[in-house]
Amino acid sequence: MTAHSEVAVHIPELIARKRDGLEHSRPELEALIMGYVRGEVPDYQISAWLMAVYLRGMTAREVADLTLVMAGSGEQFDLSSLSHTVDKHSTGGVGDKTSLILTPMLAALGLTVAKMSGRGLAHTGGTIDKLESIRGWSGELTDAAFLKQAREIGLALVGQSKDLAPADGLLYALRDVTATVDCLPLIASSIMSKKLASGAQTIVLDVKVGAGAFMKTLDDGRELARAMVDIGTHAGRKVRAVLTDMDAPLGHFAGNSLEVQEAMATLNGHGPHDLTELCVALAVEALGAYGEDAPSAEARARQTLSDGSALARFRAFVAAQGGDPAYIDDPRKLDVAPGRAEVMAETGGFVQSVDAFSVGQAVLVLGGGRERKGEQIDHGVGVELVKKPGDKVAAGEVLARIYHRDGRGLDTALTLLRGGIRVGQTQPDVPELILGRVE
Amino acid sequence: MTAHSEVAVHIPELIARKRDGLEHSRPELEALIMGYVRGEVPDYQISAWLMAVYLRGMTAREVADLTLVMAGSGEQFDLSSLSHTVDKHSTGGVGDKTSLILTPMLAALGLTVAKMSGRGLAHTGGTIDKLESIRGWSGELTDAAFLKQAREIGLALVGQSKDLAPADGLLYALRDVTATVDCLPLIASSIMSKKLASGAQTIVLDVKVGAGAFMKTLDDGRELARAMVDIGTHAGRKVRAVLTDMDAPLGHFAGNSLEVQEAMATLNGHGPHDLTELCVALAVEALGAYGEDAPSAEARARQTLSDGSALARFRAFVAAQGGDPAYIDDPRKLDVAPGRAEVMAETGGFVQSVDAFSVGQAVLVLGGGRERKGEQIDHGVGVELVKKPGDKVAAGEVLARIYHRDGRGLDTALTLLRGGIRVGQTQPDVPELILGRVE
Repeated sequence: MTAHSEVAVHIPELIARKRDGLEHSRPELEALIMGYVRGEVPDYQISAWLMAVYLRGMTAREVADLTLVMAGSGEQFDLSSLSHTVDKHSTGGVGDKTSLILTPMLAALGLTVAKMSGRGLAHTGGTIDKLESIRGWSGELTDAAFLKQAREIGLALVGQSKDLAPADGLLYALRDVTATVDCLPLIASSIMSKKLASGAQTIVLDVKVGAGAFMKTLDDGRELARAMVDIGTHAGRKVRAVLTDMDAPLGHFAGNSLEVQEAMATLNGHGPHDLTELCVALAVEALGAYGEDAPSAEARARQTLSDGSALARFRAFVAAQGGDPAYIDDPRKLDVAPGRAEVMAETGGFVQSVDAFSVGQAVLVLGGGRERKGEQIDHGVGVELVKKPGDKVAAGEVLARIYHRDGRGLDTALTLLRGGIRVGQTQPDVPELILGRVE
Repeated sequence: MTAHSEVAVHIPELIARKRDGLEHSRPELEALIMGYVRGEVPDYQISAWLMAVYLRGMTAREVADLTLVMAGSGEQFDLSSLSHTVDKHSTGGVGDKTSLILTPMLAALGLTVAKMSGRGLAHTGGTIDKLESIRGWSGELTDAAFLKQAREIGLALVGQSKDLAPADGLLYALRDVTATVDCLPLIASSIMSKKLASGAQTIVLDVKVGAGAFMKTLDDGRELARAMVDIGTHAGRKVRAVLTDMDAPLGHFAGNSLEVQEAMATLNGHGPHDLTELCVALAVEALGAYGEDAPSAEARARQTLSDGSALARFRAFVAAQGGDPAYIDDPRKLDVAPGRAEVMAETGGFVQSVDAFSVGQAVLVLGGGRERKGEQIDHGVGVELVKKPGDKVAAGEVLARIYHRDGRGLDTALTLLRGGIRVGQTQPDVPELILGRVE
């Protein structure tokens, strides 16, 4: 018989080990995961194993080894020629333009960001889509150009052209249909396998906590952050995490051009408070990973927004990747859809909550997101959250503004926002944005 | 979208319910099992669900409903035109010629056996294969002929031509490769689904316990028996179980013709003690299910072996299904392979144990069993266990005799038996054959 069958024959024993609560060795995880990636182990064996992992758990050592096996399942980006590399990952997504602001801040602080980013899917936006609102900007670079730009400007950003951690995509697809998604070892290894394969020495994580996030409670979020930091340590990387509230979207805008405009305002030093504070907090973690103490790191991070140095890096980065710098000098040039519609408060009171998922869905139906990979999107449409949780409103006052193109998706977007923004009589307790940190 | 996708979309929620330890409703089990049988639910979802069942268990009500769903997944035999129907199932298999003896006993006792039997596979023999040692005998009958014969003679036996409980075959194949075989709710439902679909009002079970059985301990065996009896009660049938030791094969012979000869000796009242006692115990359970008290049932059961009434039924049954009654009148007519080889004791002492699996494998390699469905077998080959556990042996004395054809498989069979029969100095504790009963 071939090696194929020898592996397959062995697999039920490995499933049985996890079923019985035992710890897998690294070679066992290699046999399962690489066997699956190579098509030698069938999905029905892996799904039984995933359920056993879900119910029996994994030790920290196991999760770290699983992640390394997944990270090694495809290409791995070699950033060893760059110094002080930093990558960033957020577990959430609606209206999250953090990367647009944080990455030029890190470059201005002397760190190197050579980052692969994704496109948006369903209700979440993607950094590549947002940047493509800027005429001429392209996320396609050769490896040599990518590394050269990162070395010279401190910032280069490409779309995920490489086959990074293909095991993750395969496992995720299977988890999605077998009720094994919300399992900490599997979530942590999924996120971290891509990050390890992406090559940065330091990784800062924004772990979202709240009703709309994977992690519903602060304790769960802290546990996930701890797992990811431990994986990084095991892999010889520095990982730091900030735990943030995700009950409402960040800033006031969702939609590609609108978010770039808001990011630019933030880089000019007059961005919304929550967005600014999160970017500063993540920059402090990145600098902290390279030894800088928090007070100094915070002061320097804020300075990049007040002295124009982060904006200058962003301009250089956009130009280096073919974007028209005139768009940075005058963000009003960005295409914003001309149609307007408003969601008004029916009664006076306080905004209790804004459901991030509803906002993301509204952008999607307006044409600003894609339901399937490869779909074209309209960069100009979006949603402006005029009022945020805790804000006082009078009856008839504008809660949110919709930017639409010829009415496409407008009715659905209005319904989604009317349902997603809750107004009540009592002033709500608005949680802090930054709930904690883990290193 | 089609009904197909609606079902598939629903499935992860059902998997999640079992993952979280909740109880499935009957419609939920229908959606899972019938969806799988119809090919609408993919194997990777069912295997995740099977692992969740393995680790979370099932309530007695759930197991009963699962079994009824499985029993209803294909054709179901309607035996309602017959009275006092009895079926029998054994969870073991090597050298188990019990059915050949018990079924004519039951017929002689006034009960009706209209039974579907399987062919042997791997190291286990099948009743149909054994009966085919008798020239002319056929396990193929039309439904009408099958019912008529059962009504007239009290005994009819056919091969599994019908598609009974196809869900069981599909689930079993998946369990086999996903480490979910040895799970009580799945074992109990697997066995009972076929039995319920086979239609008999009363089912007697021989639950084997021991190192070579599914159930390693008496407690486990009792739990399985209890689960199966409860399933029967839930389904409106009467089920009784006998727990028996399966550390050694029953009787002295394994192999098709050899087992028929031994069965005939037993029907003539001079069979081996263990085999005779087990058949009597199972007959007592069958009669008990129809209200007869144990002392009376036991006396009548023994009488069928001493007065020739069971043998007469067997003769009539064989003749009705085309077999030559001359073989019953003179069992020496049965084809027994002419080759002989013996396994001798290397040292004197006591036989400590005879490994049933090794004996079954020996018959297989001699040509008396099949490795794949549909293979031809040699009815004449087999093994005679001259000594059984607890027997005293002198060095050089014969432990076992092999009946081979032209030396086929002989070397392997000798090695298997030398390894499978253990001789030691101390007299072993030989467990009782009948360890308990459950009703």
